[in-house]
Order: sequence, then structure tokens, then C-alpha cells
Amino acid sequence: MEKINGYTALIERTLARQDFNDKPIELYEPISYILSLGGKRLRPALTLAACELFGGDPQEALVPALGIEIFHNFSLIHDDIMDKAPLRRGKKTVHEKWNSDVAILSGDAMLVKAYQYIVSVKPEILPSVIKVFNQTALEVCEGQQYDLNFETQDDVLEDDYIEMIRLKTSVLLGCALEIGALIAGASVKQADAIYSFGESIGIAFQIQDDILDAFGDPEKFGKATGGDILNNKNTILRINATHNSSPEQLASLEANYASDAEKVETVKGIFKDTGALVYAQSRMNEFYDEAIKHLKDANGSTEIETELATFAQWLIKRDL
Amino acid sequence: MEKINGYTALIERTLARQDFNDKPIELYEPISYILSLGGKRLRPALTLAACELFGGDPQEALVPALGIEIFHNFSLIHDDIMDKAPLRRGKKTVHEKWNSDVAILSGDAMLVKAYQYIVSVKPEILPSVIKVFNQTALEVCEGQQYDLNFETQDDVLEDDYIEMIRLKTSVLLGCALEIGALIAGASVKQADAIYSFGESIGIAFQIQDDILDAFGDPEKFGKATGGDILNNKNTILRINATHNSSPEQLASLEANYASDAEKVETVKGIFKDTGALVYAQSRMNEFYDEAIKHLKDANGSTEIETELATFAQWLIKRDL
Repeated sequence: MEKINGYTALIERTLARQDFNDKPIELYEPISYILSLGGKRLRPALTLAACELFGGDPQEALVPALGIEIFHNFSLIHDDIMDKAPLRRGKKTVHEKWNSDVAILSGDAMLVKAYQYIVSVKPEILPSVIKVFNQTALEVCEGQQYDLNFETQDDVLEDDYIEMIRLKTSVLLGCALEIGALIAGASVKQADAIYSFGESIGIAFQIQDDILDAFGDPEKFGKATGGDILNNKNTILRINATHNSSPEQLASLEANYASDAEKVETVKGIFKDTGALVYAQSRMNEFYDEAIKHLKDANGSTEIETELATFAQWLIKRDL
Repeated sequence: MEKINGYTALIERTLARQDFNDKPIELYEPISYILSLGGKRLRPALTLAACELFGGDPQEALVPALGIEIFHNFSLIHDDIMDKAPLRRGKKTVHEKWNSDVAILSGDAMLVKAYQYIVSVKPEILPSVIKVFNQTALEVCEGQQYDLNFETQDDVLEDDYIEMIRLKTSVLLGCALEIGALIAGASVKQADAIYSFGESIGIAFQIQDDILDAFGDPEKFGKATGGDILNNKNTILRINATHNSSPEQLASLEANYASDAEKVETVKGIFKDTGALVYAQSRMNEFYDEAIKHLKDANGSTEIETELATFAQWLIKRDL
């Protein structure tokens, strides 16, 4: 993944050179702050990769790529308010460090800033770039609303769950890639194919994330596992397990436990016994395979295609 | 104002035909709700007027004009959260009717929707239309942040106050007009002039609003007067009066009163005695005269110029 790592480093350097320090400072400081907290910068790196995949100059995609990253961070600021999250990447969230009003308003400003970066593309492709970006931005809002709804909903269907993660996470990967393709002058068919690659790999990633949250090695996963189980979160594991549970298993899924550890172990057992773990892994593999198929259909340069395939594998095939 | 009234009626009818009833309903219902609460639809009407002023077909400006109105209503939803406002146009605000999370997220979706409407313009003018819209959207956020800051700031300077109302209110009037001009194919000079007309008339309107909040006839003003005085709000009247007060007057401005009525009457007396009322009226007239000058400079059709001049007068010269 030498290329992708190069792209992320380039994004990081370019982002660090952006000056958001306008006035009033209450509006702009949180923008610099959230962007300084890091993150993998995968989305904008995908924009550069897609641009090069179709023979474009990644340098030309740099400013719009930053727009994708700024949009992503806007959504984090607002989501963190709704999720009452105290921390983001180990540091205080914007609404905690300042307050909710500041987080709402600087988030709004950041969404507009994202547009300012995105629309820097050549006029010829501006209509198609802004069309996919508008559509995506709206879908990300829809995904977040479904996610909020599912927190208090008992009977979430698997299809609805997949649609939620598609909207909340995957479409932005697709959009990041498609914008890179459009900048490179790719055909509509190629742009669609690379969008679908992002969409499918995003869903595969989220399913894998559900699996790792329960069964991952905390060291490798990068955070404590079992959180979703303790929160009774509607993940694909829980949805599938509920569907296939015996009355006893169902009772165990909903019971109170003396300790967190006991709950996590019991529920993991049910996820295995009901076949939910194996099922989730098979669904993940389905979306992964679809992603690779779309990547091939995109018919771009072999070098970058290989790079993106390695990236997809890295994103998904993390050790359990 | 027959033309402008015709435009607002056209906007109202067209808005009523828009279908925002997508899913999830928690995201989209608030959009239909806030837009159904009414409002004068002046901003989109200005877009249509500016289009016709420069020989364009107002019909062509209709969809982007709706985008302006949708943007305005997005800002109301988010401002109402920050201002903890229970009511908007006599009905529950979105965060009161639903909750803050819904208000944040449906506001976000509405901002994106505004872009979807705005970018429906012809590709040739899309870059310039989106440039002024982006700039304006950012400035509206800046204005709201300054307004929040000024609530708890003692020593607000008049220039900073004027800048705040320019950002919070006036630039969107300018933007609405400029987009209409761009759609009609006006020259850069004409588009700039009509923007400046909106900017100046917006500032004049806000100053007049400050004056009427203290000295207006509640019947004609459409709401109870004295609210700004009771809230010790930094208006141009209070800023100027503070600047020119004797120590005794200063003490009276900051004193506690036995009754609201006593406070309002005493402070109004100080606004008069210090010359703040006359000063505010002179500032208002200055901006009004500037607006009319810009309108003439725009050099559009005489018929619509007259219409916009009448509109400006109607907006400002409301009886005390």
C-alpha cells in the first residue's frame, strides 16, 4: 500500500497547511481543532487514488479531496453532539471542549467549507461532482437518523441495518472515489463502478467492525471489545442471533448480568451457537467480493487497481 | 409592490408543491414543518425580482430562489436551538416539537437541500452562483456566532455591531439578489451593485428593527415592544446611548427596576435624551440612501427598479 500511504501523507501535509484561523475564533478554532486530531485520512486518499486509477493527476484532486475530509469531520462534530460522546480520538469532542452551540455552528461552517473545497474542480465537471456530493451528504444525514432510530428500536431488520450502514458510512467512500474518477475524466460507467467499489467495501468494513467489536483482539482492534454487546447495540450479529435464537437464548440476550465480563462471554457464546458469527462473516465476504468485482469492472490502471485491492484487503481482513 | 407580491405568492405556491416527504421521516418531516410555518418569502422574491430587473425570466430563477428560502429556514432551525427559542411564527420550534438531535440533523439535511436547489442553475453560471452562495452561507454562520458573543459582551463597538447584522442578515439579501442577476446574465458590475443594494437595505432594516423594538407601535410592529430593553440587548440604541451617557444615565441603564414597564420607559427616555434615537435614525437613513444609490447603479429595467425602490421603502419606513 505504498501509494495509498503516500496519498494519506500528502493529505496530512496539505491539511496542516490550510488556514482556517478566521474570525470569529469561536467559529473557526473548532475546525482547526477537529482536523488536528488526526484520523487515517482514508477518504481523501481514495479520491487521489481514484484520480490516478483513471490516469488523472492526483495533485488536481487534492483540494476536492480535502473537501471530503472536511465533510467527514463536520459529520463527526454533529454526530458527537447527538451521541453525547465525550471523546474523539482520545481528545475532548468539540461540544465538550467548547459547548453544543459552538459545535452546531462550527459544524455548519465546516459543511459550507467542505463545499468550498469540493467546488474547486474544473467547471466542466462541476455539475456532476456537486450532484454526487449533494446526494451523498443527504444520505449521510439519513444514515445518522436511522442509526439514532435503531438505538431505541427492537425489531431492526437486517436489510434495514445494512441500508443504515450503507448510508452512514459507505456512500461517502463511494463519493470520494467517484469524485476522483470524475476529475480524471473517467467515463460514467467507470465512475459508477468505482463508486460501487467504495460502497461495497464500506459495508464489508462495517460488518467486520461489528464482528471485531465482539470477537476482535483488543490489541489489534485498537479499542476495548464487547462495547456493542454491553450496549445491546443492534449489530448484524445481534440482529441475526435474535432471529435464530431459542427462547432460552433470547432470554439470555436480554437478561441482566452480574458482571460485564459474564454478559460479554455469554452473548458471544450465543452469537457463535446461533450461527450469527459465521453468518456475519459470510455477509462480509459477499460484500468484499462484490467490491473487488466492481473494482475490476472499473477497468483502471493495473498498478492502482492492485493498490486499491490491497487496501480493501487491509481494511477488511484484519485478524480476529 | 404588485410585482413583489406576485413573486412571493408564486414562491409560496411553488414551495407548497415541493415534496420533502422522504425517509426517514424524523429527518424530513421537520423540513416540511418549518417551511409550512410561512414567513414573508422576501428573500426568494428578491431573487425573482433581480432576475427580471436584468431582463431574465423569473421562472428560470424559481428553483434557486427556493434554495435561498430553504437555506434561510435551515439557519432558523439551528439558531432557534442556540437561542433556546420555544416558538417560531407562533408555532413550536423544531427542537421543541421534536428534540435537539432532530433539529441539528434535519437542519443539516436542509442546508444540503438548499445546495441541491441552488445548483440547478445553468452550468455556465454555476461557478459564480455557488461562489457567492458559499461565501454568504459562511458569513451567515459568522454573523450568528458574533450575535451569540455579543449577548455576553459588555463593550460591543458600533462598527462590530453593524458588521454582525451585515453578516447575520444582510448578506443573504445581497446573495438572493445577486443570484437572480447572474441567472439573468447581468454583468459583474450589475450583479455587484444589486448585491450591495441588498446588503445596505438589510442593515437599514435591522437598525429600523432595533428602533421599532423600543419605539414602535406594537400593533403595527407585529410584536410586543421593549423586549430588547428588558434583555439589555446590545442594539445600536444601547451601544450609542452607553457611549454618550452621563454617569447617572449609565447607572440607570444598568439598574434593576421594580417593573418591566418602568424599565422600558426609563431606558427609552435615556435613548432619547442621549441622542441615541436620532443617531440610529440617521444611520438607518444613511444605509437606506446607500441602498437606493446601489439600486440606481445596477441600471436595470425601470419598472423593476421602481418596484424594488418601493419595496425598500416599505421595508424601512414603517411607522414608528
